[in-house]
Amino acid sequence: MPNGAQSLVEGLVDAGVDVCFANPGTSEMHFVAALDDVPRMRGVLCLFEGVATGAADGYGRMTGKPASTLLHLGPGLANGLANLHNACRAGTPVVNVVGDHALHHKRLDAPLESDIGSLARTVSGWTRRTYRATDLAADAAEAVTAAYGPPGSVATLLVPADVSWSEVGKAGQAPVRTGPRPGAVSSAAIEEAAVALRSAEPAALLLGGAAANGRGLRAAARIAAATGARLLCETFPARLERGAGLPPVERLAYRESDAAAQLAGTRLLLLAGATEPVTFFAYPGQNGRIIPDGCEVLSAATGTEDATAALEALADLMKSAVTPIPQAPLRPGPPTGALTAESAAAAIGALLPQDAIVVDEANTSGIWLPAATAGAPPHDWLTLTGGAIGQGLPVAVGAALAEPGRPVLALEADGSAMYTIQALWTMAREQLDVTTVLFDNRRYSILDLELRSVGAAAPGPGATALLDLSRPDLDFVALARGMGVPAERAITAEEFTDLLGRALSEPGPSLVDCAVPPLF
Amino acid sequence: MPNGAQSLVEGLVDAGVDVCFANPGTSEMHFVAALDDVPRMRGVLCLFEGVATGAADGYGRMTGKPASTLLHLGPGLANGLANLHNACRAGTPVVNVVGDHALHHKRLDAPLESDIGSLARTVSGWTRRTYRATDLAADAAEAVTAAYGPPGSVATLLVPADVSWSEVGKAGQAPVRTGPRPGAVSSAAIEEAAVALRSAEPAALLLGGAAANGRGLRAAARIAAATGARLLCETFPARLERGAGLPPVERLAYRESDAAAQLAGTRLLLLAGATEPVTFFAYPGQNGRIIPDGCEVLSAATGTEDATAALEALADLMKSAVTPIPQAPLRPGPPTGALTAESAAAAIGALLPQDAIVVDEANTSGIWLPAATAGAPPHDWLTLTGGAIGQGLPVAVGAALAEPGRPVLALEADGSAMYTIQALWTMAREQLDVTTVLFDNRRYSILDLELRSVGAAAPGPGATALLDLSRPDLDFVALARGMGVPAERAITAEEFTDLLGRALSEPGPSLVDCAVPPLF
Repeated sequence: MPNGAQSLVEGLVDAGVDVCFANPGTSEMHFVAALDDVPRMRGVLCLFEGVATGAADGYGRMTGKPASTLLHLGPGLANGLANLHNACRAGTPVVNVVGDHALHHKRLDAPLESDIGSLARTVSGWTRRTYRATDLAADAAEAVTAAYGPPGSVATLLVPADVSWSEVGKAGQAPVRTGPRPGAVSSAAIEEAAVALRSAEPAALLLGGAAANGRGLRAAARIAAATGARLLCETFPARLERGAGLPPVERLAYRESDAAAQLAGTRLLLLAGATEPVTFFAYPGQNGRIIPDGCEVLSAATGTEDATAALEALADLMKSAVTPIPQAPLRPGPPTGALTAESAAAAIGALLPQDAIVVDEANTSGIWLPAATAGAPPHDWLTLTGGAIGQGLPVAVGAALAEPGRPVLALEADGSAMYTIQALWTMAREQLDVTTVLFDNRRYSILDLELRSVGAAAPGPGATALLDLSRPDLDFVALARGMGVPAERAITAEEFTDLLGRALSEPGPSLVDCAVPPLF
Repeated sequence: MPNGAQSLVEGLVDAGVDVCFANPGTSEMHFVAALDDVPRMRGVLCLFEGVATGAADGYGRMTGKPASTLLHLGPGLANGLANLHNACRAGTPVVNVVGDHALHHKRLDAPLESDIGSLARTVSGWTRRTYRATDLAADAAEAVTAAYGPPGSVATLLVPADVSWSEVGKAGQAPVRTGPRPGAVSSAAIEEAAVALRSAEPAALLLGGAAANGRGLRAAARIAAATGARLLCETFPARLERGAGLPPVERLAYRESDAAAQLAGTRLLLLAGATEPVTFFAYPGQNGRIIPDGCEVLSAATGTEDATAALEALADLMKSAVTPIPQAPLRPGPPTGALTAESAAAAIGALLPQDAIVVDEANTSGIWLPAATAGAPPHDWLTLTGGAIGQGLPVAVGAALAEPGRPVLALEADGSAMYTIQALWTMAREQLDVTTVLFDNRRYSILDLELRSVGAAAPGPGATALLDLSRPDLDFVALARGMGVPAERAITAEEFTDLLGRALSEPGPSLVDCAVPPLF
């Protein structure tokens, strides 16, 4: 008779969840042991929980189906929360499995006891603690269903150790079939959107979430072609398909003044998978809103509806004879001379392989990347959805596991890299085809900008020290090699182009340290 | 007129909090700028929030007074929670400052919005969000008061960005005097304890929290000498003073069978600063309790009373003529031959400097350390109070900042080190005198043991892969050097002794990678 852990792992696999990003402890040992009984589940060890949760996010963004995590009690979940926050904001399906003390042990307030439920609910659309081994398979299936949504979300299952180790009785519930639900659309919302778009006021479409994937994008491009509406995508999309042959779409700018310029004159903003844009942070004297006064905001689909299907229905209704103009194939030439954020972007644009998955946490060093890669061969672009830095390298791990045939390019800022640098080890262990470009400007450069934006005084030595990543310099070549990832440092544009080309052409992980001056 | 952030920093400094372990973001920029206005506050940059919170724990354990943290919104707090959990379990005073979005920005649900309060309350004895700049100085003082306790705790202050940047009006509250409160004791509890001890049943004293510091220990030794009671300390003390000339005290064992043997025959267990011991984890067929059936449990002080003062009052009441026997100075000789956890412990015992602060997260590789160092010159021993690994290197940072004249020895397991490896960089930047011994057995070795203890089957390849830190091997010498910390690897006992001796004799940080076989 199986124990609860075996039944849980079987239940997950039966529901299609067959990858588990794990950082287990004592209370998860039966789950770990069950991996040998259910070899269809692939366990992937991460050396820090933020790597496990970020990897589950990357996996879910690419496959549209959840991976599982395996985390150890409250502190293990806490370490994984920042990247679950990003997954939550991305609408990624994730089944987040957290071990807990045995039920009878909880009242003893042992050293690792804590309020796991409160932690879990801050990032989860669905949270449950299972109290009987016999319920675990059904609860696993419910977690998977909840994770799929729509909207996709983090579903957290808290599994007490005794529930894992107890035998499942004969009365164990029958497995529940689960999977993505067919998308629902609201005909009324689509009719309303069509009427509004036909009124011919300057309009814009803002895509987000799953609607920024290929299908939604193509439908949105048909709508834009039919109506003259401007096609925009949220600032930090979970997964944007782009490149030569695809409909080009502009991302809304990060800075309020730039975003306001993009939306100037817009009288109608139609949302699909996105919410009304606001500034990322508050600044003195600003109210946080971006859209112009008097601009009407409509949504083609609510959070529980299928925004992609809604766009397709709307595009069909608009019946345009105009064919959208796809992005032309255009690449910058290989750069020469000084290595800067701009010349590095040119090298990346020149070399980006077909079908690449780009994970972008380059932050300030990345501002030239969208333009430099717009006409590269088709690729996916995954961004920092929730603003919790330390997302890039873990998401690259998950994306590479999800799509073993596709090259992954992680564009990573030095400051952000250090939050979850342990991801490099999992890349090496699993021999993932991830090329990391480490933009090494030795600053929290975004904060140089933000310090001015919030109106703080010119920084003196005390403030400056907290934005500075030198004294000592971080040696990312040593850090990568120390975790089994081959690495080299580039200090000219030619060196960078050469090293990047070699890294992309070879299988397995590698890192190119890209020495660039800070922007600000 | 100062802004809120300046008033907050001044309020903290006025209350004696003059070190801030920081990993700031945009919403904390005014606090960062205020460091230049209030130079008495020392800002210490950490590259990951778990380093900042663990450093605050180490600082508080050594000084008895709180340091401040500076964390960025919900995800920044989440990254710091595991070490705040350890601080919470240690009873360490910490003032945990977390920036939040501006109040008017919160309703916009910007990407970084999350439920910070729920996160904070899982680890904090006191949590407050400040709504007016004019309240910040007073709230800072209240946070400091709450952190001191007793019991010492994490006090979390949530500071919206607009509260930081707004001017403090003339009506700004007068600063509140704060500091540690004089300890209260319960005469009734002390009388009751004296009567029970005099009944001459086999008794044991279990010290924990602040009572394991020197004063409590000396008083407890007088009580033990007067009554024949066995002197024990909790398994994972926050700070235990020990070594030649001090009263020797045994730590309660981690494993249930060993701890039960220590307590066998005990009819009275007197707690001081500790709670009734329970097993760290639950195991099938065990009930989690350790004390023998029929053993009476008494407490000399409740959580809000001063356990150290209670012990002193009790010792005075017992009026013993017997002088406690101090620990004799005894050191192992320098080891030769194979480098193992046992020979490494001998080398550490042979070389441990006077007044060292030992931070022990050696886990399985550390089992010979207590015996090997018992007779070393007087030193402090800081342990993993809450079981959330990744505590050792950050606590070493904070302890070294707190006691610049004393050598710090961080005894660290490879698996645990990887959770907060970024601490090495702060050691290098601040040129802290921390010698790290990295017990490098390439396993989560504790889990090899725990997998058997919970009764899971003999591990197959799936389970084994999740306990194994090889494939690829971590190169801690490269990792340390990559963060600016000099490092060498020892593979024989002689090499280890030589490298450790040199590292201890030189100022500034260093790391000795200690290649040992796993125990299990």
